[in-house]
Amino acid sequence: MGIRIGILGYGNLGRGVECAIRHNDDMELAAVFTRRDPSAVKILTETAGVYNAADAIAMKDEIDVLIICGGSATDLPVQTPEYAKYFNVIDSFDTHARIPEHFASVDKAASENGNIGIISVGWDPGMFSLNRLYANAILTNGEDYTFWGKGVSQGHSDAVRRIAGVKDAKQYTIPVQNALDAVRGGEAPELTTREKHTRECFVVPEEGADLARIEKEIKTMPNYFSDYDTTVHFITEEEMARDHSGIPHGGFVIRSGKTGWNDENNHVIEYSLKLDSNPEFTASVLVAYARAAYRMNQEGQKGCKTVFDIPPAYLSAMDGAEIRRHLL
Amino acid sequence: MGIRIGILGYGNLGRGVECAIRHNDDMELAAVFTRRDPSAVKILTETAGVYNAADAIAMKDEIDVLIICGGSATDLPVQTPEYAKYFNVIDSFDTHARIPEHFASVDKAASENGNIGIISVGWDPGMFSLNRLYANAILTNGEDYTFWGKGVSQGHSDAVRRIAGVKDAKQYTIPVQNALDAVRGGEAPELTTREKHTRECFVVPEEGADLARIEKEIKTMPNYFSDYDTTVHFITEEEMARDHSGIPHGGFVIRSGKTGWNDENNHVIEYSLKLDSNPEFTASVLVAYARAAYRMNQEGQKGCKTVFDIPPAYLSAMDGAEIRRHLL
Repeated sequence: MGIRIGILGYGNLGRGVECAIRHNDDMELAAVFTRRDPSAVKILTETAGVYNAADAIAMKDEIDVLIICGGSATDLPVQTPEYAKYFNVIDSFDTHARIPEHFASVDKAASENGNIGIISVGWDPGMFSLNRLYANAILTNGEDYTFWGKGVSQGHSDAVRRIAGVKDAKQYTIPVQNALDAVRGGEAPELTTREKHTRECFVVPEEGADLARIEKEIKTMPNYFSDYDTTVHFITEEEMARDHSGIPHGGFVIRSGKTGWNDENNHVIEYSLKLDSNPEFTASVLVAYARAAYRMNQEGQKGCKTVFDIPPAYLSAMDGAEIRRHLL
Repeated sequence: MGIRIGILGYGNLGRGVECAIRHNDDMELAAVFTRRDPSAVKILTETAGVYNAADAIAMKDEIDVLIICGGSATDLPVQTPEYAKYFNVIDSFDTHARIPEHFASVDKAASENGNIGIISVGWDPGMFSLNRLYANAILTNGEDYTFWGKGVSQGHSDAVRRIAGVKDAKQYTIPVQNALDAVRGGEAPELTTREKHTRECFVVPEEGADLARIEKEIKTMPNYFSDYDTTVHFITEEEMARDHSGIPHGGFVIRSGKTGWNDENNHVIEYSLKLDSNPEFTASVLVAYARAAYRMNQEGQKGCKTVFDIPPAYLSAMDGAEIRRHLL
């Protein structure tokens, strides 16, 4: 029997977790929990059932790790500490500014109940954070850069969709090539928001909508667009479905720094991701950390952890001797 | 008082460690140990002494972590287990095939004496290994690629220097751009040795040497060059000193893999390094892991570890709350 995974919330991320479990032989999907009517939710795995979220706690002995696939704004701040009372839990909480309070509430619930909770797992926060940490620990005298894209920003797409006259919209965040090149060259430039990323919007207007007004509303929208160079394209519904149905994303974490007695040598560390499916990649990271949560809890560990606290070996299905032989 | 570091062996790597300590405020250089005459070894740090390697053990209470900067062929297999009896030790053992036996001998010595030994620390093995592990754990269905360069290979440079009529030589390993591009594109190509890297040699011949014979001996040398496309340039001693005095290196670890119920989405994870000084970067990694060795031993842990076993947070001078706030 493999590590028994439960999924709470069956949207794009939950479905991604289901797919990732299929790619890990030592894991099995035990149950999907939903706040919708379970009979209306069709999943891909024939051997697992769909249950009401309210029934999860009654099934706690049948699940080794619960992966919580809710949103960071309102779901996870409530769900993760609540379920950490009963399960080892993993989430992808990504509201950077609120991580300290989320950590504290999950730590309390998990510690008091002997469980492990790993928060903010994914690629940013997650793999990008890890790479920032490693690069900072090695090159203590240097500069950090994070670029996102090319990829779809859900938040920015939603913001455009809320404009009157917009039927559908998709927004891509795009790193500026010149800025990337300067950073990679070790020049350690100071970059403004506008110099790092551009934004490109594909908009399906409602019939008869004032396109000039929509474009102006987008480009001047505070926080979302006004600090960026933004391009707006008006397209048809058919073009939207044909060319923009994916959820790609990615980005770059780069640190350049100096070593030597007189800082005479320069170094550049770069980590990058090119992802066809943002939710499926995030889900694949969640599942690897579910393995770690299970193992750490089996050893008697408890409390809230982040990717910074997890020995990398815990993520691999291979044992220590195997990974030393094949990957070191 | 900071973490007190001892350096055993004062070549390029040992000097790199000395420079890295200067860039880490929580560390101090306690002593340099050498097999040469200590009075003939001048170091950069005014506050530290140089001692004979034979005197190291007598100073064990003055040193928290000993960084062993010997060679992998003959020094480290003897030195690391021997000194692990008395010190927490770090080395950069890089003979991949012999890691299992080195691990076993260091583990025995360190465990029996309550010390931590972290072996094979640097960038490959080291940071490249870590990135292979993380990428494999996330994208379980994929292909790994490691490219090295552009950089100086010491072993290949030495091999050319041993040819009759060669006064001096430097060999650069260069990744093939087309192969890199194909891998980055997610094509998961099968690549031969010749398709992945080329080799470029800069040779200072002795006066009157037969250049055609030297070039042929290089290009047909088994293991080192015969499986590669190699270019040979004959240059003067002045050109060698002017253009080839550095020890740059670097490379790329790339994994591409598929996710989705029917493997319909592709992803590429890439980690790369561009290093002006191979030994100074390696030394910077060693020093970060020295911090981890010290902390783990303070907690009562012992035995042999690799980068796979170390929680990333142990590498950072910041505490947990700080790294969550600034880097997550």
